[in-house]
Amino acid sequence: MEKAKRTEISTLGEFGLIDKLTQHIQLKNTSSVKGVGDDAAIIQPATTQVITTDILVEGIHFDLVYTPLKHLGYKSVIVNLSDVYAMNATPKQILVSIAISNRFSVEAIEEIYEGIQLACTKYNVDLIGGDTTASPKGLVINVVAIGEQEKSKIVTRNTAKEGDLLCVTGDLGGAYMGLTVLQREKQVFLNAPDASIELAGNDYIVGRQLKPEARKDIIEFFAEENIIPTSMIDISDGLSSEILHLCKQSNVGCQLNEDGVPIANETYDKALEFGIDPINCALSGGEDYELLFTILPSDKNKVNAHPDISIIGEMLDENLGVKLFTKGGNYHDIISLGWNSLKDEA
Amino acid sequence: MEKAKRTEISTLGEFGLIDKLTQHIQLKNTSSVKGVGDDAAIIQPATTQVITTDILVEGIHFDLVYTPLKHLGYKSVIVNLSDVYAMNATPKQILVSIAISNRFSVEAIEEIYEGIQLACTKYNVDLIGGDTTASPKGLVINVVAIGEQEKSKIVTRNTAKEGDLLCVTGDLGGAYMGLTVLQREKQVFLNAPDASIELAGNDYIVGRQLKPEARKDIIEFFAEENIIPTSMIDISDGLSSEILHLCKQSNVGCQLNEDGVPIANETYDKALEFGIDPINCALSGGEDYELLFTILPSDKNKVNAHPDISIIGEMLDENLGVKLFTKGGNYHDIISLGWNSLKDEA
Repeated sequence: MEKAKRTEISTLGEFGLIDKLTQHIQLKNTSSVKGVGDDAAIIQPATTQVITTDILVEGIHFDLVYTPLKHLGYKSVIVNLSDVYAMNATPKQILVSIAISNRFSVEAIEEIYEGIQLACTKYNVDLIGGDTTASPKGLVINVVAIGEQEKSKIVTRNTAKEGDLLCVTGDLGGAYMGLTVLQREKQVFLNAPDASIELAGNDYIVGRQLKPEARKDIIEFFAEENIIPTSMIDISDGLSSEILHLCKQSNVGCQLNEDGVPIANETYDKALEFGIDPINCALSGGEDYELLFTILPSDKNKVNAHPDISIIGEMLDENLGVKLFTKGGNYHDIISLGWNSLKDEA
Repeated sequence: MEKAKRTEISTLGEFGLIDKLTQHIQLKNTSSVKGVGDDAAIIQPATTQVITTDILVEGIHFDLVYTPLKHLGYKSVIVNLSDVYAMNATPKQILVSIAISNRFSVEAIEEIYEGIQLACTKYNVDLIGGDTTASPKGLVINVVAIGEQEKSKIVTRNTAKEGDLLCVTGDLGGAYMGLTVLQREKQVFLNAPDASIELAGNDYIVGRQLKPEARKDIIEFFAEENIIPTSMIDISDGLSSEILHLCKQSNVGCQLNEDGVPIANETYDKALEFGIDPINCALSGGEDYELLFTILPSDKNKVNAHPDISIIGEMLDENLGVKLFTKGGNYHDIISLGWNSLKDEA
C-alpha cells in the first residue's frame, strides 16, 4: 500500500509504537487531566458526561482496496463524535484501540493516526488513551468518545411527543451511493487491473462515504438559538431505521413526507443511473451521520431559518403507526431495511 | 463448541441480539444515569475519573481451544478493572464492544456476556454500553472501564521517590505457568485427540491464567489504612517490565530482592518441571494482574501487617540503575523480556 519507507512494527514493539504515535499529543480540554502513558487516563468533567463506543472491522465496515488509511482513521473518530452530538453534547475526549496484523507497516499505522489526529484537531477533542495490539489477520479499530453537557440539555431518543416536528440535517443517501460507486469500481479493477478507475464526477458522494463529517455546527446552532430538541438520534443505519427507533422508544407514531426528504442532486442522479429509487437511498442507505431530531412546534421558525435543516414530518399518536406519505399521495408503512452488519453477514 | 441449542445470530440481527444480551441489566452505581439503548450512555461522576481500555484478539490474547467463553468474558473485564485499581480508583462503569464471526451462535455470545455480567456483579460495576458487530473471522473484545477517585488520591506511575519501598500483592508467575500447561495439553490433544487432557493438580496456575481476579481488596485496604501509594502499576506484562515503567517514569533506580519475590508453591514446582527458573516466571511471565506499588517508609508497618503484600525492594537514585539482587548475592540489570504481543507476532 505504501510505496516509500516500510518499517516493520516488530522493530518498535508495543511501547515503542505507542511512544511514536502519541509523542505529539497535546491535551486541549480542561477536563483532560492526564492522557496516554499510565494504567488509565484521568478526566475531571465539568458536568454530566455521555460516552459511546463503536468498533470498525476490516471486511465488514471498510474495504482497504478503496479506503485510504488516513480517511479510515478520520472516519473511525467521526462515527463516534456523531453519537455524542446526537445526545446534544460536546465531545471532549477519545480513546482508540487498534488491532493490526504485521502486514501493516509502522508508516501505515501512522497514516491511520494522522487521520485520527486530524479529526481531533478539527473537532477539538483530546486523544487520551487506548490500546495497540497485534491481530492474526485484518485491522480492527475501536473508538470511545466522551462528551459533556448539562444534564437538563442532554437529549435522548425516548422523549418525542405527539405534535413534535421531525427534522433532519444535510442530505441523505449520499454515503450509500458513494459506497455503490466504490464497489462498482472495485469490481472493474478486479476484473481488469489495467482498467481506469472512474471516480470523476462522483466527488460528493464518494466523499460522503470515505470522509464523513459530524454535525458539530448543529449542536452549536441549538445552543445559540436556545433550542433543545425533544428527541434526537444520528443517522448511521438509514432514515427508516432511525425513525423507527425514535417512535418505538418515545411511544409515538410518525408521518414522514417524502417530498421533504433532502437528497443531493448527485445522489439522486447516481441512484437513477443504478436503477435505484432515490428515496430508498435516503430511507435505507446508512452512514450519512446526519442528525434526526424532533422539535416543539414553537421552535419551527428558528429551525426553518437554518439553511441546512429540513422539516420532514410530524410525530403522531402511537396508534397511527409510522408512515411514509409519498409524493404520489399514498401512505406506506415504514419498515427497517437499514444496514445491519450482523444480518448482512449471514 | 456448544452441544445444546444453537441459534444463529442472523435470526436476531444486531438490535435483537443487543436486546437479548442487555435485557437483565440493572444499573447499581449512582453515577450511572443511563445505560444501553441510546446513541451514548450518560454518566454523572461524583468526582475525578480514570478511564482505560484493552482490546483482546482471538489468536493473540486467547485461544478458544482451552478458554471457556464465560471465562473469556470475565477476564476481558478483569484486565480493565485491574488498570482502574492500579490508579487507586474504584471502577464504576464498563462498555463492551464485541466483533464476532457467524461461527458463533447466540448461545455462545450469551456465555461471553454471562462472564461479563458475573464480573460486573462481583466488582459492583455497571455495563452501560458498547457495540456488537460482525467479524469476517475470529472474535475481538474491547472493554472500556471507568473509575472514580478524589483527584488527590489518584496514584500514577511517575511519582516514586528514592527511599520508597517497592511492594507487590499476591504471588507472581502463576498465570504464565498456567498458560504453559494449557499450551502443552493443547499439543497433546492436537497430536492425539483421544489422549486424556491432564490438568489435575494444576488448578491454581490454570485458574490464574483463565480466571484472574483484580485487586479490589487492596484498594479497600489502602482506604481503610489511609495509605496512598507513592506510585502504582498493575502487572500485566511481567514484574521486570512493570518495574522498568515505574523507574523510567519516576526517574529513579531500584533494587529488587529475589528472595522477597512471592511465588506460589505450585508455580515454583511446575516451573522446575518445565526446566524454567522460577524467578524468570515472576520477572517475565505476564497476566498476573497483581498490583506493584511503592510506599513511604513510614507506611512499612501497616503494609507488613497485610498477609498478601510483600515488600520486595527499594527505590534508589536513578544513577544506581535497576537491579535484581539475587539469592546468590549478585546484582543483575533488570531488562524487560515481558510479554509483548506486537513483538511476539513478528
